[in-house]
Amino acid sequence: MSMLTLEQANKLIGETIDKAVSLSLKPITVVVHDPGGHMIACQRQDGASSLRQKLASGKACGALALGVSSRKIGEMAVDRPHFVASLHALADGGIVPAAGGVIVTDADGRVLGAIGVTGDTSDNDEACALAAIEACGLRAG
Amino acid sequence: MSMLTLEQANKLIGETIDKAVSLSLKPITVVVHDPGGHMIACQRQDGASSLRQKLASGKACGALALGVSSRKIGEMAVDRPHFVASLHALADGGIVPAAGGVIVTDADGRVLGAIGVTGDTSDNDEACALAAIEACGLRAG
Amino acid sequence: MSMLTLEQANKLIGETIDKAVSLSLKPITVVVHDPGGHMIACQRQDGASSLRQKLASGKACGALALGVSSRKIGEMAVDRPHFVASLHALADGGIVPAAGGVIVTDADGRVLGAIGVTGDTSDNDEACALAAIEACGLRAG
Amino acid sequence: MSMLTLEQANKLIGETIDKAVSLSLKPITVVVHDPGGHMIACQRQDGASSLRQKLASGKACGALALGVSSRKIGEMAVDRPHFVASLHALADGGIVPAAGGVIVTDADGRVLGAIGVTGDTSDNDEACALAAIEACGLRAG
Repeated sequence: MSMLTLEQANKLIGETIDKAVSLSLKPITVVVHDPGGHMIACQRQDGASSLRQKLASGKACGALALGVSSRKIGEMAVDRPHFVASLHALADGGIVPAAGGVIVTDADGRVLGAIGVTGDTSDNDEACALAAIEACGLRAG
Repeated sequence: MSMLTLEQANKLIGETIDKAVSLSLKPITVVVHDPGGHMIACQRQDGASSLRQKLASGKACGALALGVSSRKIGEMAVDRPHFVASLHALADGGIVPAAGGVIVTDADGRVLGAIGVTGDTSDNDEACALAAIEACGLRAG
Repeated sequence: MSMLTLEQANKLIGETIDKAVSLSLKPITVVVHDPGGHMIACQRQDGASSLRQKLASGKACGALALGVSSRKIGEMAVDRPHFVASLHALADGGIVPAAGGVIVTDADGRVLGAIGVTGDTSDNDEACALAAIEACGLRAG
Repeated sequence: MSMLTLEQANKLIGETIDKAVSLSLKPITVVVHDPGGHMIACQRQDGASSLRQKLASGKACGALALGVSSRKIGEMAVDRPHFVASLHALADGGIVPAAGGVIVTDADGRVLGAIGVTGDTSDNDEACALAAIEACGLRAG
């Protein structure tokens, strides 16, 4: 399995937090998971509430589980709430249907893992994730 | 960990029940949890139904998990039901999206725990919690 | 259902803690549950670790679930570990097979609830529970 | 809540990995949790297997749940396997009874969180945790 290295995961998280700080967002939490949904790295900023790691992981792992961004899963949840609700019983660690979970690929589209961000608005969470992916020379899947 | 002492927790519960009695509310159940969501104290009044402790804890722990009152989580659940539904799989002990769960802080805003109240209307539940927090010289977070 | 009143539950907990303090035990946690296994009251002394309420409840609820003390369940677990292990999947809130969970009855043997104590040795935990039951004019089931 | 800052958590993890590298250990995974058992930070070295974050968290959170090191819980599990087995149903995220999970306190013994390490032998995992705690000017609880 091609996957993000710890060095890449740490850099993704660092860039995400830098972006959030530059935008004066609320304290955020950032996780990076491998393609199988297993955590590589996490950082929760001081002042973030207690469920934040699980929320961030639920965004990242949901994206990997369904092969789309957690923003897309949020849209699916509006259209077909019963379908998304059924996933909670299936997905180890849950699936959080809100923007901020993004699949990370290499230049050839190979899935290397996913990033999950939570703490501010879902749109801002996702914007930081996308900025970090670009800053690391990777691509959003 | 800065957290409410058992003495403070017992006093919070006593004040909450006194308030409920003075307002002739239905039997209530009151819990106090530490900042990590672990129970410090609980009292369920005679006549309260069987799920009440878990309901009260789901209000208090939901508030701590997301860093806002359970009233706010109730508002989020109206706006984005699929998002709040997704939290149930993540949060140990559940998250109850209805007023009555309030974060308790010291004068400097440091989180010391949370109180959860259930039994009457959510508005009345919350009013008793807020009255108790004030009577104990603490603050609602 | 005949069950302990909140006043009785609070008195049971108070007597248990008084006993523990008089014996200079480690910080203890005491819960009282109704005959259906639902919590009436809880107090966790300052300095007790975070899982303590669940441990105490697992002792009390295990006793109610099987109709014997949690000491007896501990003995069953030594004889037939596979049987007791199978209960964990059945029992809401778990079953903790160690002394300290005692069924509480009235003078006629009617089950009114159960008390669960944890924090010191299991033997000491149970001794405090038994002392409190007697001090309250109740009986150990 | 007094708890480790993200900066302290990252430094603890960095020191733990440095120690593991200096000893030529197998790839390790290190987590830091707050006193309530919620994750602050995690790093999984390249080549570590997929369950490693959960194993490390189960060591750290078990230590916090019971108020002793995961080494001690491992000893309890040898003496009373049925008791430790019963905890798995109670503890959110599980309890891993093997050395490598250590409570972290300040100089006054106040609990600030816990560190969990897995990947090499349990003794080596714990040795790295203890070295990191000392290097950060903190104490093992």
